[in-house]
Amino acid sequence: MIRRSRYTSFAAALLIGVSMQCTAAEWGFQPLPFKAPEPADNPSTAAKVMLGKQLFFDTRLSIDNTISCNFCHDVTGGGNGTDSRSTSVGVDGQIGGRSAPTVWNAAFLSSQFWDGRAPSLEEQAKGPILNPIEMGISHEASAVDRIASIPGYQTQFAAIFGGEEPVTYNNIAKAIAAYERTLITPNSLFDQYLRGDKTAMNEKALAGMNEFENLGCIRCHNGPAFAGPITTKGEVFYQYFPANRSIYDELLGLQEDDGVRTGAGDKTPGRWRVPTLRNIALTGPYFHNGSVKTLKKAVRVMAKVQLNRDLTDEQEDNLVAFLETLTGDFTVQRRPKLPDDVL
Amino acid sequence: MIRRSRYTSFAAALLIGVSMQCTAAEWGFQPLPFKAPEPADNPSTAAKVMLGKQLFFDTRLSIDNTISCNFCHDVTGGGNGTDSRSTSVGVDGQIGGRSAPTVWNAAFLSSQFWDGRAPSLEEQAKGPILNPIEMGISHEASAVDRIASIPGYQTQFAAIFGGEEPVTYNNIAKAIAAYERTLITPNSLFDQYLRGDKTAMNEKALAGMNEFENLGCIRCHNGPAFAGPITTKGEVFYQYFPANRSIYDELLGLQEDDGVRTGAGDKTPGRWRVPTLRNIALTGPYFHNGSVKTLKKAVRVMAKVQLNRDLTDEQEDNLVAFLETLTGDFTVQRRPKLPDDVL
Repeated sequence: MIRRSRYTSFAAALLIGVSMQCTAAEWGFQPLPFKAPEPADNPSTAAKVMLGKQLFFDTRLSIDNTISCNFCHDVTGGGNGTDSRSTSVGVDGQIGGRSAPTVWNAAFLSSQFWDGRAPSLEEQAKGPILNPIEMGISHEASAVDRIASIPGYQTQFAAIFGGEEPVTYNNIAKAIAAYERTLITPNSLFDQYLRGDKTAMNEKALAGMNEFENLGCIRCHNGPAFAGPITTKGEVFYQYFPANRSIYDELLGLQEDDGVRTGAGDKTPGRWRVPTLRNIALTGPYFHNGSVKTLKKAVRVMAKVQLNRDLTDEQEDNLVAFLETLTGDFTVQRRPKLPDDVL
Repeated sequence: MIRRSRYTSFAAALLIGVSMQCTAAEWGFQPLPFKAPEPADNPSTAAKVMLGKQLFFDTRLSIDNTISCNFCHDVTGGGNGTDSRSTSVGVDGQIGGRSAPTVWNAAFLSSQFWDGRAPSLEEQAKGPILNPIEMGISHEASAVDRIASIPGYQTQFAAIFGGEEPVTYNNIAKAIAAYERTLITPNSLFDQYLRGDKTAMNEKALAGMNEFENLGCIRCHNGPAFAGPITTKGEVFYQYFPANRSIYDELLGLQEDDGVRTGAGDKTPGRWRVPTLRNIALTGPYFHNGSVKTLKKAVRVMAKVQLNRDLTDEQEDNLVAFLETLTGDFTVQRRPKLPDDVL
């Protein structure tokens, strides 16, 4: 039996700073579509996806040829699309400040990065290449030169994008984004359940789903990716985190990173894009700083810091059982053959 | 440019012993469907698939608890659905006489086993459990007792199949078959090409596709799985192999195993079910005895022994490039938690 959620004042408080009104349909349970949406200016083709996959795996997009997109968003061998580290490692062994979010289903997010600063997969792809502690290329033209100097890439860019200078930074990003739109995990047990197969979820998982709704987790974690409603491009579904002060602030260092500042002074917490819960059982460690290793503890901390609730052991177990049903079908990614430096 | 195939007398000769007439549509190129067909008496549900997956991975279906279905048809870690051995290993280290065919897309075959002796996935699943050199259980009742004694299985069989004795050998096979129907690999580059994305295949692969049709490979390797037309249940699309005498008979031991005997005496070769070419680039070693390691050599041998043709190096390379486009999307299979022996 699933009851409607009860809303208390904290739910309203959490919504400060969110610019859109949500309707019931937007924040209810939704299955993950079998196909990701494509922007009108970057339609997918098999050739573009194959090119993007090569670029995603190519370490030549980093200053010392050591780091590829896949290095931090490992999709091989049933990979979870992250590096499973607390925070990621870039060129020269530099350690970043935030945990790599999974690339799986990023195509269903309305904004990219923990702080939502990129409105599309295309814009996201342009970031890490130029970030000095990630891939460390000095400027866009340098990345373009590297790719354009490889004959096997030249041919592909020319066939796919045409024009006099087919290799551009925008086109590199477009190809990578087209590949990333294939990295989706439909058909989870939860999705099968929503689509009508009532055998897909057991009693424990159903009890967890009920808790998820009644406690109010769903107020932020909704939509097809459990990352908030699909917004207009550029609008970010932000939430304060941690919304309540607790022992976890110090234990887990939750206030050491502000996300996007509100401008309201030091007494307000940072704002963050709501992260997806799809495949959450596989994508630990958890939170922007990777400070929590297990899903059960992540559930406990979230209930405390966002909802100011202390859960029973059974509630936690049920919520974990529910979240485990959000693991979808991963498509095996085989490392592609990359074009040689010279013919 | 794709021309219609030219048929010569050998093609007619190959068809001796095949009981159905094929129409052009049946043996033309066809994409792999996104969903496998289900028999009316064994509809799939999420719960049945989950049960079948557990049974597929459970070594308790072998006499000494060492061999599961997955042992010879490994689907984990991007596995190709075979054991990648020439011929398979069963209980007590016994070595079988034939190479394990891939379980991926077996749902699209009209008959199972190299000699086509099982008309369905359900009937196939019943074979290896009782085969003394495979899983070595002595009789059906013994397999049923083993599974029925495990409380976690009892509960699932009761919920799924009902009745007073829900654990039966038929129901074990039904659950395994339901799981196997999820092991399909749609969306290969070839399929994307057939569905209209002309960027999915390059010139080399297209030249290979042309050769495949013109040489007559398609005469037997047709239908959605390239394993012959979908036949009425129980009808097997047999072909003689090797159809022509050659040095390969001795080099590869091709005549040491007869497949299904024709009853026409020692001068005719054995008959075999036409195997699938889906994912053939990944499923070596090749042939019923696993005597050929590389796809290029398999192409050369097939052209010689079935079509009496000596291919050029370029023809072989093009055919390999074409066959590589038949690799589809594999869904990552994570080893399921199995029910404990006792509560």
